[in-house]
Amino acid sequence: MDKNLQVLIKSLPKDKLSSDNYELVESNLPNIDENEVLVKTISFAITAGTRAGLQGSASYAGAPKTGIVMNSTGIGEIVESKNENFPVGKKVLTMTGWQSYSAQKPESLTLLRDNVDPSLYLGPLGINGLTAYFGLLEIGKPKEGETVMISAAAGSVGHLVGQIAKIKGCKVIGVCGSDEKCNTLVEELGFDSAVNYKDANYRQNLKEATPNGVDIYFDNTGGMILGSALFRLNPGGRIACCGVVSQYDTSSPEPGPKGIPGLLVNKSIRMEGFLVFDFAAKYEDATSKIIEWIESGKLKVLTDEVHGLGSAPEAFVDLLSGGNIGTRIVLLEN
Amino acid sequence: MDKNLQVLIKSLPKDKLSSDNYELVESNLPNIDENEVLVKTISFAITAGTRAGLQGSASYAGAPKTGIVMNSTGIGEIVESKNENFPVGKKVLTMTGWQSYSAQKPESLTLLRDNVDPSLYLGPLGINGLTAYFGLLEIGKPKEGETVMISAAAGSVGHLVGQIAKIKGCKVIGVCGSDEKCNTLVEELGFDSAVNYKDANYRQNLKEATPNGVDIYFDNTGGMILGSALFRLNPGGRIACCGVVSQYDTSSPEPGPKGIPGLLVNKSIRMEGFLVFDFAAKYEDATSKIIEWIESGKLKVLTDEVHGLGSAPEAFVDLLSGGNIGTRIVLLEN
Repeated sequence: MDKNLQVLIKSLPKDKLSSDNYELVESNLPNIDENEVLVKTISFAITAGTRAGLQGSASYAGAPKTGIVMNSTGIGEIVESKNENFPVGKKVLTMTGWQSYSAQKPESLTLLRDNVDPSLYLGPLGINGLTAYFGLLEIGKPKEGETVMISAAAGSVGHLVGQIAKIKGCKVIGVCGSDEKCNTLVEELGFDSAVNYKDANYRQNLKEATPNGVDIYFDNTGGMILGSALFRLNPGGRIACCGVVSQYDTSSPEPGPKGIPGLLVNKSIRMEGFLVFDFAAKYEDATSKIIEWIESGKLKVLTDEVHGLGSAPEAFVDLLSGGNIGTRIVLLEN
Repeated sequence: MDKNLQVLIKSLPKDKLSSDNYELVESNLPNIDENEVLVKTISFAITAGTRAGLQGSASYAGAPKTGIVMNSTGIGEIVESKNENFPVGKKVLTMTGWQSYSAQKPESLTLLRDNVDPSLYLGPLGINGLTAYFGLLEIGKPKEGETVMISAAAGSVGHLVGQIAKIKGCKVIGVCGSDEKCNTLVEELGFDSAVNYKDANYRQNLKEATPNGVDIYFDNTGGMILGSALFRLNPGGRIACCGVVSQYDTSSPEPGPKGIPGLLVNKSIRMEGFLVFDFAAKYEDATSKIIEWIESGKLKVLTDEVHGLGSAPEAFVDLLSGGNIGTRIVLLEN
């Protein structure tokens, strides 16, 4: 009989996360109760937001705990079933966590559509894509011709936000942490320009890249980049607050930028946080739209693959320092 | 012939404002051009927001200058006219500034309605009242039964916000800087409770006053009180960013509170700045509504009167340290 390989949270990070905060263990396969299924993980996504769950109580992910499996969304195949709506052999999107098998209740399962590459469910058709879609369209409310600025623009959410903004007729400026990423955004994904925030002339470069100011800032980072965006925003501007990756990997988050709330008042700026779950009722329509854009070639998907469950901790640490381009996916070996 | 008494900005404050930053001068009456009128000031309002205009360039009031008349809204009587729509003897609301006479163009004049106490135009029917009305109703969007928290709650805007929220069926908690003010809010204006932010147990008292959390925070202060509100806000909460009085009277504004943008994301909070001018198209309707509330006794007006142009600088310095209850008005001697 197969064993379940799991990556557990061994200790909570005191300051920066390290792979030593995790341990790989082997356990028996979980039993499934009535109506449940056993899912064998095919792959899972590593996303910066899960770092917030290790960081104190003020997170939608709840209070941090040790001794539990690290959480993540993943895709897998049903290998045992006590639910006729979810038969053996079907592929599903679910909260697999960092482990090879998991018992799942039916309400946590999304059946993958046929004729669609399953890995897309960890990127544009999963949490990342829906976050990009609703954050830009429902919170940012872009109008044709407006300027959209995006932080962590080469990340799993950011690289999709920029392309959706282009589809909506906006001018798009990406902010990211390397010249290689800047190049990818402009050359491969069609961003109008990209600015490296690690460059000593970042603020001047941002100013030159946004001669008409910024109408929508899609914020994945908070911190200094949020501060720079506040000064470029036009009256009536919007900030879609999606994530705070600049403040996750630390024990002492910085205060908010100067100019909050002063600049919000002076420029009538709307700054709005959201969680993708706020829009659950509209997931189906959004997914259909995103599939249409991918099939027509309007939306390109960047994926960054890592192999083997044991490589997940290092891959996460590296992602938090900006090592990924696009969605980082861990593929399990069979 | 009468002379024009004026209070000029003599120097910009280096840190805290002092009455030495102003000087009282006497000059000739201004000439009026075609279509203009000469207005003799009856009274003007002193409001914290004008402090921002002395503080650097990042203000809707424009870059600060010396040698000019201190600005303010006021009411006055037309004493000379080259415009038949604005005849001599009519009373108007306009930007009188701190002076006894001013030349005004027609587009800057609002004729006062008949049968309405002119002084109401410096409070509930002027900028203060319209700011309270649109900030609460259009930005906060209160629903019956929700909890509304207000900072600078005994101020010219705050004391009206709380009463409008009560009219809309909300539970109302005011934050202010003295026990006397707390008492006035609850006993005279019908707030459900009031909390003194200078009290050592402020955060605990706020928590006890908001057992169901806060749905709308109307922010006149920024700073520490904004920080405390962020922790009390419920998921889906709104912050109407109206002013930043805690950061006006200083040369070194603090950074924004911790938790921005993190708490906005975790709790799907909308934080939105506004200027009353954003709603200019709706002033007439709002004014009629506010008159109706005053006449029916639902909206009480707190006014704090000071006499003589020369007392304006001290009255402003005192207001910035919280000396006023309600709208502070300077009445000119005739």
